[in-house]
This record gives sequence, structure tokens and C-alpha cells, in this order.
Amino acid sequence: MEIVRYPERNKWEKILERPFYSSKSINKTVKNILKNVKDYGDIALKKYSYKFDNVRIECLSVSQEEILQSENSVDNNLKKAIKIAKSNIEKFHYEQKQNLKVVTTARGVECWQKSVPIEKIGLYIPGGTAPLFSTVLMLGIPAKIAGCDEIILCTPPDENGNINPVILYSANIVGVKKIFKIGGAQAIGAMAYGTGTIPKVYKIFGPGNQYVTAAKQLVSMEQVAIDLPAGPSEVAVIADYSSNPAFVASDLLSQAEHGIDSQVILTTTDEKLINDVLKELEEQICLLPRKEIAEQSLKNSKILLMKDRNEMINIINTYAPEHLIICTKDSDEIAEQIINAGSVFVGSFTPESAGDYISGTNHTLPTNGSAKAYNGLNLDDYVKKITFQKVSRDGLSEIGPAIEIMAEAEKLRAHKNAVEIRLKDINTKS
Amino acid sequence: MEIVRYPERNKWEKILERPFYSSKSINKTVKNILKNVKDYGDIALKKYSYKFDNVRIECLSVSQEEILQSENSVDNNLKKAIKIAKSNIEKFHYEQKQNLKVVTTARGVECWQKSVPIEKIGLYIPGGTAPLFSTVLMLGIPAKIAGCDEIILCTPPDENGNINPVILYSANIVGVKKIFKIGGAQAIGAMAYGTGTIPKVYKIFGPGNQYVTAAKQLVSMEQVAIDLPAGPSEVAVIADYSSNPAFVASDLLSQAEHGIDSQVILTTTDEKLINDVLKELEEQICLLPRKEIAEQSLKNSKILLMKDRNEMINIINTYAPEHLIICTKDSDEIAEQIINAGSVFVGSFTPESAGDYISGTNHTLPTNGSAKAYNGLNLDDYVKKITFQKVSRDGLSEIGPAIEIMAEAEKLRAHKNAVEIRLKDINTKS
Repeated sequence: MEIVRYPERNKWEKILERPFYSSKSINKTVKNILKNVKDYGDIALKKYSYKFDNVRIECLSVSQEEILQSENSVDNNLKKAIKIAKSNIEKFHYEQKQNLKVVTTARGVECWQKSVPIEKIGLYIPGGTAPLFSTVLMLGIPAKIAGCDEIILCTPPDENGNINPVILYSANIVGVKKIFKIGGAQAIGAMAYGTGTIPKVYKIFGPGNQYVTAAKQLVSMEQVAIDLPAGPSEVAVIADYSSNPAFVASDLLSQAEHGIDSQVILTTTDEKLINDVLKELEEQICLLPRKEIAEQSLKNSKILLMKDRNEMINIINTYAPEHLIICTKDSDEIAEQIINAGSVFVGSFTPESAGDYISGTNHTLPTNGSAKAYNGLNLDDYVKKITFQKVSRDGLSEIGPAIEIMAEAEKLRAHKNAVEIRLKDINTKS
Repeated sequence: MEIVRYPERNKWEKILERPFYSSKSINKTVKNILKNVKDYGDIALKKYSYKFDNVRIECLSVSQEEILQSENSVDNNLKKAIKIAKSNIEKFHYEQKQNLKVVTTARGVECWQKSVPIEKIGLYIPGGTAPLFSTVLMLGIPAKIAGCDEIILCTPPDENGNINPVILYSANIVGVKKIFKIGGAQAIGAMAYGTGTIPKVYKIFGPGNQYVTAAKQLVSMEQVAIDLPAGPSEVAVIADYSSNPAFVASDLLSQAEHGIDSQVILTTTDEKLINDVLKELEEQICLLPRKEIAEQSLKNSKILLMKDRNEMINIINTYAPEHLIICTKDSDEIAEQIINAGSVFVGSFTPESAGDYISGTNHTLPTNGSAKAYNGLNLDDYVKKITFQKVSRDGLSEIGPAIEIMAEAEKLRAHKNAVEIRLKDINTKS
């Protein structure tokens, strides 16, 4: 890790720059895949499964039997852990429900906002060496709480055409029953346009590699909503003399092991801590199966020695990390001052992995500095807040004249007329 | 208007298709403008003002003096009307504030979500023949309620280099003080990248022509958030035998006058009403200064005669209109069943212009069918909901083992390690 000591304010932006990954070169490939899925539907999906995933898929849908069998293939302790996670995530997201409240803005004028679930949504779960069942929980649970009518899930099968049973088990206990064996940009295309087998959805959720991300971005230009602009994962840690260097090192590593493009930032006011953390990193990294990945991503990573507490807070708000761990003596007070972050982990006994799996917060979070304007997934992402207004005769008598004046001033005569014609009616009948 | 009688279900999508406007051809122009603004800042802005708006701008910032003078140039009745609108919009958006609520998801595990204002935002107000001061209220008021720190506004000047005083007056009473004389794609670029004069923002709000829309979409690929995918404005009306045909016609026209690309849909179960509305349209349209625009957009528009109430509701939910007016006998009950719409106007005395100006709801709404997944602007758009979690020693003893099992199953050993190392510490010290 690069150590930066007491950087001047005008150098911060440069120091905090994320490694840049251009998506231009893959956009052409992805556009082509999307076009083929749009034109040829299931046939294109099967072709791409063979080409990219090396598997011949006869039936894209996961059968009821496969789902039921998954129950038997998953270790009992893992099932228990998943159920605890489910319960906590449910509790936290359930509290995000909003009650309808009618606001009387003027005499006879009632306005309200109603949360209505998005009817059809699609979840994408990436494949790879490890089954990302935690993401099934994070994407699926709020969808069920919101009340989305049709929830589908796409995930790539292995070379034998099977989906990892933990994925199926997790989807099943969340209540997601329509699961399809398809991955990559072609899965995003299938959900965006619909195919013979896979229904078209209105919004697509979930992480993925750069092809999936590019596909999501491209279909989002065509009236399909997507959840978040996704980028490599990252964590920042704020630590001081009181922090436990072994804990800090373990947190940095648990981010660094994600991928070689992960970024890790440690900021502190304590020079001694830096040395202790570096020592711990060296020891702990040796024991990791994903040691090489972690080593790579630590090369992109930085330790920032700052001159005081305020500077630590400011540089973190400038960086806007996806995950932020605060393990200082005054972690509660610092947490109060964080204005740009995806999710914040307060205190020495709140590792990032708590939020990744089980605390209840969502682990789908804004990366690459987008936490300055975006938040992580929550119930809002699964609903539309439709506004309603109801104006009585008295109400229109009250606000009508002001509407007429404003419409006239914006030179929209028909807008004025819609009020005038009603006021005339009211005055005739009263 | 084209009348479609009793369309079969499998024809609905085709009938409801919006006119298609390709943005491809202008993307190249807009990319070039954005690049020049990024590279040359204020110099590029001034060059484009001269080229596109035919005005030489010396100073891009609106002076304090210009803002104060606007107060004197605006008609007193208009000022009063604007103040009423401001008060109603404030009331409705203020009620959207969310209190922080700490949820204990498990013993020793506390999670909460905190709404934090987006620090820097930019508002865009289009120019043209009429000053869109109502949009200043709609974009600016929630920004102030949310507590955004830096709010800037860009709008094109007239050929004398002046901004319409109603725009300045509205911005001033809302509390938006940093106003810049610049319009078009170049204004979007200025807010996205920052120039010598115009500060860079994290999110850009506001409507515009297709150049502005394309620019917003392009900068949104580069970490700047934008409010909504914008398209031509539209209204749908649900009417029955009890509806007043003059009112219905006035509502259709108040949408049709917006622009030649506006779309208007009337759906009803009553054939007689259709004839009465057509007659009213003919009479009312003659009196409009924007008659030609309204005539053009009525050509894109449709009257759908449906066989029953349920079909009316279903076809509207399939269309997902930006604005929906329900003026049937049972308008309250129908409103309950609307699941896809931007804003709904309930009852015969609630014209669309009520919501456009003064009822209190926001008039920035999802168009082009995107109401299936998006809602209109509200307080959420001006904040990030940052999640926090705090796990105590007891809490980690409670949830730690489950995290370890899940991390192991996802093959993320360092994630497990971050818990293990802490549990060891807890067990040693207890």
C-alpha cells in the first residue's frame, strides 16, 4: 500500500482518483449480443450459453424439482445462517415502508404520495467460483416486501447445466420462483426485451462483470430501469491510536480479496498504527486462499496519514467510499459527520462482513464515488411513489385564480382555460 | 384524434406506442459540445452562447443587482400567485421528510438509514418564448427542504443577455442565489465538469430540448447523476357518461398545446361522450394562441373506446401516462387501482394545470411509459439514504458465527477472518 503523509488539500482529488476502466471496447460486443437477443430470443440465449459458458441448455427454466432438491443439498448450518440473515434483512427493509399521508396543501386541495410496487422486476446473480447467495437475499427480500408482482432471477449455470443449490435454496426461501439458467449480457438483454421463455421486466437489479454492467447501462437508455451504476468494490477505514491493528488489517483484506480491481483506503492520524497495520497485513495475507488477488488490489490502495480528525473526515467525504468502517474512540461522533458514503460500519466490532451478510442493511451500494449522489438499494428502488391530488369545487375557487395568472404568464392559454371553464361552471351553479 | 373502438388485448401495446424520436443523430454534436466545455471551460460557453443563442456574454453570473431588480419588474398579482404555489409545494414536499429510526435487527445489532442532502446540485431551466418559472419552484423548493448546500441554476439569456425577471424572482424567493446565463448542452457540460465560473455539481435536474436531454444522458455515464429520463409530455383522461365534455376537452388541449410532440389519450366507455368531446375540442381550439401546436399534437393522439371500467383501468396501466386525469363518477375507486402513472388528478375539478402549478405535487414526472419503473421528483431525489450499522461485542457474538458460515460458503476467507479475529478477542477478554 502506498503511504501518503499529510497531503495538501489541493492534491486530494488526484490522490483519491480511482483506477480507470474504460468500457468503450466492450460496448460494441455487448450491443451485438443485445441485438441478437432482441431479434432471436431464446435461440440467441442458447447459442451464447454454448459460446461463453460452454454449456448446451435445453430448458432455460429451472424446474420445480430442481428447486425442491436444492433444499437437501445445502448444509444445515448454512441454511440456519441464511435464515438468520433473511430475518434481519427483512426487519430492516420492512421499516422502510412508508405510510400514505394525505396533505391538505390549501383549503379543498388534498395531495398524497402512494408507494406502488414495480410490477415486473428481474434479478441478476453472477456466476463464478463462489455462489453469491447473499446477493439473492439482498435483491429479493426488498422486492417481496415491496410487493412486486413478477420477480424473475437469471444466473448462469455451470458446465453441466446446473445452478448452485445454495442459490436455488436462497431464492426459494425468499419467494423467488421463476429462475432461468442464463448469464452475462445476454441475460440482461433477455430481461430487457423478453424472449419466448423469459418475461420482459421493467427494472433490472444486480451486480456483474463489465459485460453485464455495460449491458445494463445500454438497456437503461431504452426505457428499462436499472438499479445502480456498478463499479469495483471498495472500503475506507478511519482509525486512530485506539484502533486494533489486527481488526483494521482484517477489514482491509476482506475488501481486497474481492477482486484485483478492489480499492482499499486507510486513513488515520496515528503514524504508529500504520506500521502495526502493515505488519498485520503481512501476517494475515499469507493465510488467504485468495492471497494473490488481495496482493494485487492492495497495490491500488492507499494509507493516508492526516494531520487531524477533521481532515480525516473531510478526505473521506471527498472520497465517498462504498463501505466505510469507523473504528476510532469517537466512532459515533465521526459517524454523525459522514455525508458521502454507501454504508457505514460504526465501532470496532462492526466489520464490513456484518453488512455484507447479516446485519440487515443492503450490500448493494454505490461505488466509484457515486455515493455523492446515490444511495444503496432500499425499498424505494422497488416502488414508484405516485402522486395524487384531489381538488374540490371550493378548492378550485381557492387556487384557480392563481393558476390562471401563472398559466397566462407562461403563455399557456389552454392551461388557463381548463381552470376558467370550471370556475365558470362553479359560479353558475352556486 | 384517432378513435379506436374496442381494441383487442393483444393490440394494446401497438396502439399505445409513443411516436419514436431518435437521438442518435444529435449525440455526436452534443458529445463535441461537452468535450469542448470540459477542455475550454468558460471560453467554450461564451463561444456557444454566441453561436446558438446569438448573444455575447461578458459575465456568465447573474449579478445581485439583477436579482434584486427582478422584484420590481414582476407583476404583483403574479408574485402573489407564485407565493401561494411556493407555500403549497413546500407543504407537500416537507411531509416527505423521513425521520431517522434505529432498527434493532438482532441482539446488539443496530441499523439505521439517514437521509443526507446531496451537497452540490444544478438546476436547468430552458429558455424559449415563455419563462418556465414554475419549474424553478418545482426543482428548487425540494432542494432547499432537503438542505442541499450548493444549489446553482443555469438558464439561457435572451439576445440582450438578460434573464426573464420572473425566473430571477422565483429563484430568489426559493433561495437559489447562484444563477448563470447559459443554456443548452453546454450548460449541462458546465455543471457536470465545472468551469472557471460555474461550479461542478453531483446531480443535474431539469427539463430541456433534445440536446439538453442527450447531454444529461451522456454526462450521467460519467458519475454525474441526473433526475429523470425526459421525453415529450403526455396526459391520459379516464371519462364516463357523467364527465363534463367541456372540461375533458380543456384538459386534452392543455396538454396538446405544450408541443407538437405531446401526446393525449382519452379513454372512455361512453360513445356519446366522444362526440361531445370532439365538438368541444373544435370550439375550444379556435381560441388558443398555440392552436397550431395543439392541432399537430392531437394528430398523434387517440380516443380509446373500451368495453368496461376494468378495461379502461387496464389499458391506462399499460400505457403508464405521465399525467392521468380521472373524471368519472367513481374517480376515487378508479384512483385506487392505478398502478402506473406519474401524477393522478382525481375528480372533475382537478385539472392538470392544478398540479402543473400549485396543488403542491411536483410537475417533473416520468414520460414515455417510464412511469412503470420511475416516479416523479420528490425529496428522495435530493438526498442519499446512507445506511449505518453498529454491532456490539454481544451483537458480534450473536451474529458472528452465521457470518463465518456464509463467508466460507461464498469462499471469501478474509471476510470470515474479520469476524474470527474479533470473536477471538471477545472470548479472550470475557
